[in-house]
Amino acid sequence: MTMAEFGIEALRWRDGVLELIDQRVLPHEERYLACRTAGEVAQAIRDMVVRGAPAIGIAAAYGVALAALAKGRADADVLAADLRCLAESRPTAVNLFWALDKMKARMAEAGCTPADLLALAAQIHADDIRMNQAMGELGAALIDGPCELYTHCNTGALATGGWGTALGVIRSAHAEGKVLRVTAGETRPWLQGARLTAWELQRDGIPARLACEGAAGSILREGAVRWVIVGADRITANGDTANKIGTYNLAVLARHHGVKFMVVAPSSTIDMAMESGELIPIEERPQHEVTTLKGLAIAPEGFAAANPSFDVTPAELIDAIVTERGVVLKPDAEKMRALMG
Amino acid sequence: MTMAEFGIEALRWRDGVLELIDQRVLPHEERYLACRTAGEVAQAIRDMVVRGAPAIGIAAAYGVALAALAKGRADADVLAADLRCLAESRPTAVNLFWALDKMKARMAEAGCTPADLLALAAQIHADDIRMNQAMGELGAALIDGPCELYTHCNTGALATGGWGTALGVIRSAHAEGKVLRVTAGETRPWLQGARLTAWELQRDGIPARLACEGAAGSILREGAVRWVIVGADRITANGDTANKIGTYNLAVLARHHGVKFMVVAPSSTIDMAMESGELIPIEERPQHEVTTLKGLAIAPEGFAAANPSFDVTPAELIDAIVTERGVVLKPDAEKMRALMG
Repeated sequence: MTMAEFGIEALRWRDGVLELIDQRVLPHEERYLACRTAGEVAQAIRDMVVRGAPAIGIAAAYGVALAALAKGRADADVLAADLRCLAESRPTAVNLFWALDKMKARMAEAGCTPADLLALAAQIHADDIRMNQAMGELGAALIDGPCELYTHCNTGALATGGWGTALGVIRSAHAEGKVLRVTAGETRPWLQGARLTAWELQRDGIPARLACEGAAGSILREGAVRWVIVGADRITANGDTANKIGTYNLAVLARHHGVKFMVVAPSSTIDMAMESGELIPIEERPQHEVTTLKGLAIAPEGFAAANPSFDVTPAELIDAIVTERGVVLKPDAEKMRALMG
Repeated sequence: MTMAEFGIEALRWRDGVLELIDQRVLPHEERYLACRTAGEVAQAIRDMVVRGAPAIGIAAAYGVALAALAKGRADADVLAADLRCLAESRPTAVNLFWALDKMKARMAEAGCTPADLLALAAQIHADDIRMNQAMGELGAALIDGPCELYTHCNTGALATGGWGTALGVIRSAHAEGKVLRVTAGETRPWLQGARLTAWELQRDGIPARLACEGAAGSILREGAVRWVIVGADRITANGDTANKIGTYNLAVLARHHGVKFMVVAPSSTIDMAMESGELIPIEERPQHEVTTLKGLAIAPEGFAAANPSFDVTPAELIDAIVTERGVVLKPDAEKMRALMG
């Protein structure tokens, strides 16, 4: 299974360079940015050239490989600065730390070489695609189709190694003929839904439309949407889920309207060391991401803006967490332990 | 009391011309558009040069006066085409039809002249300002300050004759020292919150910040916001309220978090002839308002978008409806009848 089979390659390794599709200029331009050092990878993560929790983890793993290849050493002490720089690129997604820990564990093994680290990064990448396909099938099986679905942010091939998490479930459900239409929330301020999810849906020919976040309540009240399906940046030991800002609104609205709410994420997103959602660090991004758009001011000069990048949905609002290890219905601490044990 | 005392004049009558501040280019430019005919007023309403239910009603009243002055007749038959053109400019706000009905009723009186119609339009305008101040005081009295408030869309001087409805309550509450901070939802797709409410709040020196609609749930969960305060485009006989898309989401989120929800609107917004909210016609605006911003595409070419301009909040989610006639707590059909009787 190669990424190319999915048509969309968010990340690719070519001739000793990590190439990232620049998600800041999609859907208007398909431009790749070449990263030759761990520092360049960290910068690309910080600048959201690459985003999406699984894709960030994969990019960071390749970043470690780049550092090791450059220094000719696969040693965590030698690469300490590179590892720290990558770890500090974004705070909320736990897949980043999970991937760095995997790379460090390999370095701790006797005889580890830079080539071994590159192989491990490629393995993490390939595993992610395989897991997404597994999750796609598990999630699609929960959907009593044909019906409409609602999704938020981008959780597709662009956010992962390929196929996608929540959007992977939508792809799988569509392949099974269960999808009448997908509504994608535009996902302000960064418009991942409008720019990225819409682009993926259009490429795949899945019937779909865009909506502003404010229209979600009206749309769910109409009754045609049966599932809201989202990804996750971190899931705590009790099933609480941090995901793109706006997710929590959707969970409350879904519950109010009797619409089911599904979270789709690889088990690397689950942070069993963190008890519950209120402990998750929420990244506050620059105010200008809200007050400007494409460099144009959309608010008065100097006006303040809240810009939390994520919110936390409590487990009691989640009907299903879908991972490659299996599905947890109505998650709680005990069921999460059983899944991860 | 003149509009100028409020500093912001959304509409003004000068030398036989209706001047409208062009709300499409605020906050970056303060430019007035001159309307010399009823057709130009209708076009300005349709194009959202002027918006906000009360302001639309006032503009339409002046539009009738313009037609009568041009034709030298104050006769509903003579002005039938102008009246129809104005009535068809936007479908949801009932103030528009209310204002046109008032103008027609005056025309039905013996000896009515074009000058009488102009005087009535100016009267409707002045009355609106006075009603807003009355509502400001009534609404502010409900707020157990000092606390944070949350608002949506623009309901200020720009949306009315002056002072504002929901933003009028916020102005009055601020004058009474009850407001620690206001969060204004940016209000996609048209960004009335980011462009217009932020501009008004900044001019008045009210401590405030902007937030994307997706952040509302997180913000309400923090617990500092005590009231969500919004305007209305139409309130039906049972208290159901149509208002800018995104209002219903906020009502559901407010109830979920134990935050109070206040609707502020003059009684001209109340449509006692319509039984309940599901009967309100909801304007669906062009898709490009969602898929482009300032003429720039933010979604793939040709991608569909839902763009309902309003949603309906059922009365049971509303804690208070504030009108110039008084306050209705926990509205229902009986209480609305008592208010309007």
